Amino acid sequence: MATTLGFLGGTGIEGRGLALRFAQAGAPVIIGSRSQTRAATTAQQYNDILGKPIVRGMSNKEMLAASQIVFLTVPADQATSAIDSCLADFQPGLILVDVTVPVRLVEGRVEYLELPEGSNAEAVAARVPEHVSVVGAFKTIPAHILAQLDTPLQCDVFVCGDSQEARERVMDAARLIPALRPLDAGPLRTARTLERMTVLAIHLNRRYKKKGARYNIVGL
Amino acid sequence: MATTLGFLGGTGIEGRGLALRFAQAGAPVIIGSRSQTRAATTAQQYNDILGKPIVRGMSNKEMLAASQIVFLTVPADQATSAIDSCLADFQPGLILVDVTVPVRLVEGRVEYLELPEGSNAEAVAARVPEHVSVVGAFKTIPAHILAQLDTPLQCDVFVCGDSQEARERVMDAARLIPALRPLDAGPLRTARTLERMTVLAIHLNRRYKKKGARYNIVGL
Repeated sequence: MATTLGFLGGTGIEGRGLALRFAQAGAPVIIGSRSQTRAATTAQQYNDILGKPIVRGMSNKEMLAASQIVFLTVPADQATSAIDSCLADFQPGLILVDVTVPVRLVEGRVEYLELPEGSNAEAVAARVPEHVSVVGAFKTIPAHILAQLDTPLQCDVFVCGDSQEARERVMDAARLIPALRPLDAGPLRTARTLERMTVLAIHLNRRYKKKGARYNIVGL
Repeated sequence: MATTLGFLGGTGIEGRGLALRFAQAGAPVIIGSRSQTRAATTAQQYNDILGKPIVRGMSNKEMLAASQIVFLTVPADQATSAIDSCLADFQPGLILVDVTVPVRLVEGRVEYLELPEGSNAEAVAARVPEHVSVVGAFKTIPAHILAQLDTPLQCDVFVCGDSQEARERVMDAARLIPALRPLDAGPLRTARTLERMTVLAIHLNRRYKKKGARYNIVGL
């Protein structure tokens, strides 16, 4: 049976492109939201874009019960509160994929927000029950490039986490998306690197007046 | 007049490939060493490889007097002592390019060594006189790939530093090397990202049994 992919906070820009890419590739996708109505409306919008009814909308609680891999796609500063509100609904064996990057504005410039835990992925891992595996992935791919379904990604997605099995399962899911190469980036603390790489990409976009800077590893 | 490129600690593996690539591209290159004899021997070896006498060897003091851009190419844990021994010889306007990445072994695994200054480039900047501009660059390109002169680099080199002029001059130098794209990576603190990216590349090499993992930005 195909792995069902849920989106916790799936109605915002952060989750939009990723949900669409997975659904376009044929994966079962469920949009979760605090509001079941809002989730259903968003799912309908996504299905209209895709031209087929394959995305479902549910309350976060229902989505968490029905999904094996859940992407945390809220703004970074809402990540911990989103998790806290769902703690009782995390099933044993759930893989929670943190795609968020904490940033702050310093004199009009986006800077990485250094957290006591070392990275947002590690901060998330510190808050979830032990029976949930946290993986950091899709952090370095711009949300709006993901949402441009006719733009081939042609880049790598770095997948980190302390459970090798969880990393493998997220990489297997990522392989569904064309022109995207998943790379095993090792333990969760690699998120310290990946989150900073996103901020570097934002700087490069600004410096070179582009929007889609993303990473490809040469030599692998 | 072409910019003369010096190598502080230019006799080791760290500087070898970079010096050879620049010399091959026609740039005036000076190998510096604490020992003038050792510098001359290394320069001779490099000229033998290149098939033309374009690399010179000098004491660090002489090299620093004759170079406009100097690459700090010692092992990371020797960076500060190498600088301290040359403090009196840094000319006003010198551009010092830190290519080093501080790592440590944790249970047989290479990990990034987090420094109080935030990065090795920032630690270097804290030690040099104000009239020296510190730039971080070439951190993410494996030394042994640089030394394989017949391997096209086909990657990006990220250049960071707090002086825009210094960044531009290092990027101009980097443009001499074929199939290498310099990217302006902003302020020196970006070295916190670049140094970690090197450790990620080391992990990827190990994970995928390769040796030449390096970065290319897509979408710029």
